[in-house]
Amino acid sequence: MCVDCQTFLHGLIAKGLLFETGVEGLYGRSGIFEDVVTRFDQLISRYGGDDGAEVIRFPPGMNRELFEKSGYMNGFPQLAGTIHSFEGDDRDHAHLLEKQAKGEDWTALQKATDIVLTPAACYPLYPVVARRGTLPESGGIFDLSSYCFRHEPSQESTRMQMFRMREYVRIGTPGQVTAFRALWLERAHKLVGQLGLPFELDVANDPFFGRAGKFMASSQRDQKLKFELLIPVESTGKPTACLSFNYHQDHFGLLWDIKTPDGGTAHTACVGFGMERVTLALFKHHGLDTAAWPKSVRDALWG
Amino acid sequence: MCVDCQTFLHGLIAKGLLFETGVEGLYGRSGIFEDVVTRFDQLISRYGGDDGAEVIRFPPGMNRELFEKSGYMNGFPQLAGTIHSFEGDDRDHAHLLEKQAKGEDWTALQKATDIVLTPAACYPLYPVVARRGTLPESGGIFDLSSYCFRHEPSQESTRMQMFRMREYVRIGTPGQVTAFRALWLERAHKLVGQLGLPFELDVANDPFFGRAGKFMASSQRDQKLKFELLIPVESTGKPTACLSFNYHQDHFGLLWDIKTPDGGTAHTACVGFGMERVTLALFKHHGLDTAAWPKSVRDALWG
Repeated sequence: MCVDCQTFLHGLIAKGLLFETGVEGLYGRSGIFEDVVTRFDQLISRYGGDDGAEVIRFPPGMNRELFEKSGYMNGFPQLAGTIHSFEGDDRDHAHLLEKQAKGEDWTALQKATDIVLTPAACYPLYPVVARRGTLPESGGIFDLSSYCFRHEPSQESTRMQMFRMREYVRIGTPGQVTAFRALWLERAHKLVGQLGLPFELDVANDPFFGRAGKFMASSQRDQKLKFELLIPVESTGKPTACLSFNYHQDHFGLLWDIKTPDGGTAHTACVGFGMERVTLALFKHHGLDTAAWPKSVRDALWG
Repeated sequence: MCVDCQTFLHGLIAKGLLFETGVEGLYGRSGIFEDVVTRFDQLISRYGGDDGAEVIRFPPGMNRELFEKSGYMNGFPQLAGTIHSFEGDDRDHAHLLEKQAKGEDWTALQKATDIVLTPAACYPLYPVVARRGTLPESGGIFDLSSYCFRHEPSQESTRMQMFRMREYVRIGTPGQVTAFRALWLERAHKLVGQLGLPFELDVANDPFFGRAGKFMASSQRDQKLKFELLIPVESTGKPTACLSFNYHQDHFGLLWDIKTPDGGTAHTACVGFGMERVTLALFKHHGLDTAAWPKSVRDALWG
């Protein structure tokens, strides 16, 4: 699928920017890598900071019951991660350790907890907003960021199993929400341009699972509900989605019963930033030595 | 166990500093809460910043095989969280959705992945250090931080299932390592004093599981391997461990075969900061309005 992804990933590891853990898609980050992530995060805030978004930071896991209600397992069962734990007594514990010692599978003894890993930063938000009752006239705008999990082991540096997603989410009337998406499509042009990265915008679809998923993906594309900002990182022919702009229409509004003051069902949209992906794009295009990056890029990040 | 923990937690939620998710010990954080966490993080860096520690940031999960080797399941099986995922086909998917629709347990169909949630920020570090070969004369010193998971649902605000731990880890000769711990015990006095928080230091033990665990806990206390800095948050009688100072002797050195240049087995120690716990202690002692906190505390954090 990718031409020289192994080379790029190995280069990052050899340079000490990422650390191997023995699991594909799971890496430690160096201080330099993290500094770029932090500076990019601050750059996003400079673009979105005047919108008055409410900052909420959720941990990397969410309530399993709410996750189930969200319907994520309909579309993406292959990506979700449920958290399981040991709930036995001394005897069960001895049994578990015996299996471990013999190199047998002990994980079937684990029981699902009430928590699943967050698949996208905005999933835990909607129930919180719904609990507050009818939206004010101005709707809602939220600034989110969290580690997310997607079970898709890969040797592509840009396809991590655990990665950070920053998001702005708009909740309100169709007009408020589509204006928000249009504004961010415009801002994104400027922002990614400031970073000196080549990009293209394209209509996209989520990776829906299975046979039924093919229909969902095609319908999503036809309705132009999702755009992605693509940057070549692992390959030029298959550039990487680094930002996404998603118009959910009334999907989450109906699901969580979120209402606008006129009694209508709220619409929602989000802009999501793949923090590691953009950071990797910067290393790919400007080189592994941040001190040697173009002055305009350094000014945008550290200026 | 705690006198007015419900009151304190409810106060934080009513004030909008934390957000309920419907799962005990799992909360969203407001922008104000996060700002305190960030400022405390920066204060720690001001104390430790001149030591030349190597910064590494691991995601909130680690390699399951290395986790198993670490022996965590011997001591704390009840706290660990393994990540499980769906690995079936269209037919299995239909079966899963049917179970979900009927309100039946569908999680037994999930299979363990190669990843477990990180139980303490330093666990993923040792194998990385081991791979580098024999330590240099100066040993190693590392600056870590990550979200950690412990499966212990609770109504105590200070006992979160997902929380952040900042750590400095020292790896080297027994002399290097014990000097590090002594230095941080001294620094911690000053740091927590700057924050205007009452505290005491005490010998401690980890919450080892089961009958055999009682012996391990008692041995750890007798050898004074772990100290905790305790601050009253939920109750005065049972103050909360907010920082810990752990001398592992050669436990991790032997396990991962980490050597000092003289051929000896490396010793390790760490100082860990419970980021949410210290933040909660600040809100408990100085009130829920950060603008009204004592000037000296504000200067330490925002100065």
